[in-house]
Amino acid sequence: MATSILALSGSLRAASYNTALLRTAAELVPDGATVTLYDYRDVPLYDADLDKPGSVEAFEAALRGADGLLIATPEYNYSVPGVLKNALDWASRPAYKGAIFGLPTGIVSASGSFVGGARAQQHLKPILLAMGVPVFPWPELLVGGAGGKIADGHVTDEPTRGFLRSYLEGFVPWVVKQGR
Amino acid sequence: MATSILALSGSLRAASYNTALLRTAAELVPDGATVTLYDYRDVPLYDADLDKPGSVEAFEAALRGADGLLIATPEYNYSVPGVLKNALDWASRPAYKGAIFGLPTGIVSASGSFVGGARAQQHLKPILLAMGVPVFPWPELLVGGAGGKIADGHVTDEPTRGFLRSYLEGFVPWVVKQGR
Amino acid sequence: MATSILALSGSLRAASYNTALLRTAAELVPDGATVTLYDYRDVPLYDADLDKPGSVEAFEAALRGADGLLIATPEYNYSVPGVLKNALDWASRPAYKGAIFGLPTGIVSASGSFVGGARAQQHLKPILLAMGVPVFPWPELLVGGAGGKIADGHVTDEPTRGFLRSYLEGFVPWVVKQGR
Amino acid sequence: MATSILALSGSLRAASYNTALLRTAAELVPDGATVTLYDYRDVPLYDADLDKPGSVEAFEAALRGADGLLIATPEYNYSVPGVLKNALDWASRPAYKGAIFGLPTGIVSASGSFVGGARAQQHLKPILLAMGVPVFPWPELLVGGAGGKIADGHVTDEPTRGFLRSYLEGFVPWVVKQGR
Repeated sequence: MATSILALSGSLRAASYNTALLRTAAELVPDGATVTLYDYRDVPLYDADLDKPGSVEAFEAALRGADGLLIATPEYNYSVPGVLKNALDWASRPAYKGAIFGLPTGIVSASGSFVGGARAQQHLKPILLAMGVPVFPWPELLVGGAGGKIADGHVTDEPTRGFLRSYLEGFVPWVVKQGR
Repeated sequence: MATSILALSGSLRAASYNTALLRTAAELVPDGATVTLYDYRDVPLYDADLDKPGSVEAFEAALRGADGLLIATPEYNYSVPGVLKNALDWASRPAYKGAIFGLPTGIVSASGSFVGGARAQQHLKPILLAMGVPVFPWPELLVGGAGGKIADGHVTDEPTRGFLRSYLEGFVPWVVKQGR
Repeated sequence: MATSILALSGSLRAASYNTALLRTAAELVPDGATVTLYDYRDVPLYDADLDKPGSVEAFEAALRGADGLLIATPEYNYSVPGVLKNALDWASRPAYKGAIFGLPTGIVSASGSFVGGARAQQHLKPILLAMGVPVFPWPELLVGGAGGKIADGHVTDEPTRGFLRSYLEGFVPWVVKQGR
Repeated sequence: MATSILALSGSLRAASYNTALLRTAAELVPDGATVTLYDYRDVPLYDADLDKPGSVEAFEAALRGADGLLIATPEYNYSVPGVLKNALDWASRPAYKGAIFGLPTGIVSASGSFVGGARAQQHLKPILLAMGVPVFPWPELLVGGAGGKIADGHVTDEPTRGFLRSYLEGFVPWVVKQGR
């Protein structure tokens, strides 16, 4: 059975570089694995007083059905977008029993600036470990200057496509090895 | 004219320890300053494709009208709640010209656990500096074991009230000195 | 053959709580594994102009001979002690080929304060991942108020000993599974 | 009287990009202020059992005699070099009474990689705030691809020299305003 990787983009805008990175990952992923984008934009702002909405139940089901998770995140104010963190906050409840607990996860990032999302990755790593999530240690992928490497919702720059392919060739076997 | 401190809680739930901390700050703030809670729960998930909604314009107006900002944050997954980060992401746009730019800011935290929100503060500091926001350096306030120190939406523990009073006695003059 | 865990304390002082935590880990580690403290105090300040000293070669040999690494760190200024970071900086060279590359690592911490080293762990996790080191995701161990739980260089508090035993029962099989 | 800025480089090697950045800052600093490099390489590894050595007393005297502090740091393993953190650990003792307490501080960074030290700055900011040190919020300076912008121990790239000049024109008045 194929290894199923769920993919979350940290940006909701249609022309997002990070969504494009995941779309391209779905094309380049090695045989025997799939990458499936999940759109969580209907997950509401977290409020512990709320009953769990259906949108969150659907998100949880997608996480529970996956073998691994791939997150592509932009950098908003040197950290993870609130939008992405909010979805992860829902997925982590209840603590150490939520849908994301134990799900092997990789992080990639793209940004128009030369820093390439490095600081967002820096914050996201301990956040994921706090949820009891194994974090893929190496190699890593940061795409700086994304404006010249991504067009029409796909990575067009050949070296960047090669880095992404190498990343996935390391990431998928690691997901399989971690199990869940 | 009084020094006006706008206050944001990182938690939306009604019985939030952090909202209680801010409510108590409004009582204990020194003469010549006011602390006013702002409820940003109608600020939607950030999406660069959206037109700016009225809820964001109201939030921006509140930030532009304040002399200082006081944030009380819980710790969700060892970082800032997505809900709070999302509101700050809106407030920071456009970069270095948004409503929060240059607004002198202090951070306090409360949590039921013994760690007291220390890791949320650790992440929030570089996030605020990334927005061109001066961060109050010292003293600091972390309230651990908040379940025994807060009741009915107010801080009841006398030592904690004293720490909060001391914090505000340092914070308010610092806000005045920083100007904007 | 036994699983060999090398142990590094972030503090050099003789009565260190963190060294005591590792000494106790050596007693409580499950059968089939060993925990061996390594004293790196003769590793000098890193300077790329220096020839590699013998003390660093000995440290590298110890890392290359281990199956896993256990770090116990105090919190100095809300981060990792410079002393520990300096030793890790040596161990990471050359990048992705150094002696620490790929070595499965767990982090524990003890501190006299109630925060228990949480912020030092927060910084150490992305530092280790930067070195291509897998980081043990869960459970975690923070010992706050260590003054009442550690005496004569050993953990004396029974609940804390139990938490440490549970930690090791999770950590050792994870080290074996990661391989190197 | 001139505003005296003490400058610390996070790298000890002779051809350090960060030391070059500070050397150039000393040339470009506005009239009425001076930037003076301090070489702390004789500050030993921190050990609370040690008597305070003369090298630390000299370092403390330099910090106490300064109006502001400028740190240029490389990025070692996505964080602050152990060498620099070790010196800061000494300077922070005893807590909130050490020589660095309250000293207004700016951070710049240079690196051969395209990330430019962004993650080292990300970690250094909360470390400094932990010491009760005001951190300069804006503008910031990161020099990526430093190999092409620095030669013979000085910044040669004209745009980078301009960014550094602008940084200092913002930083020096901020130091004066903060006082100590």
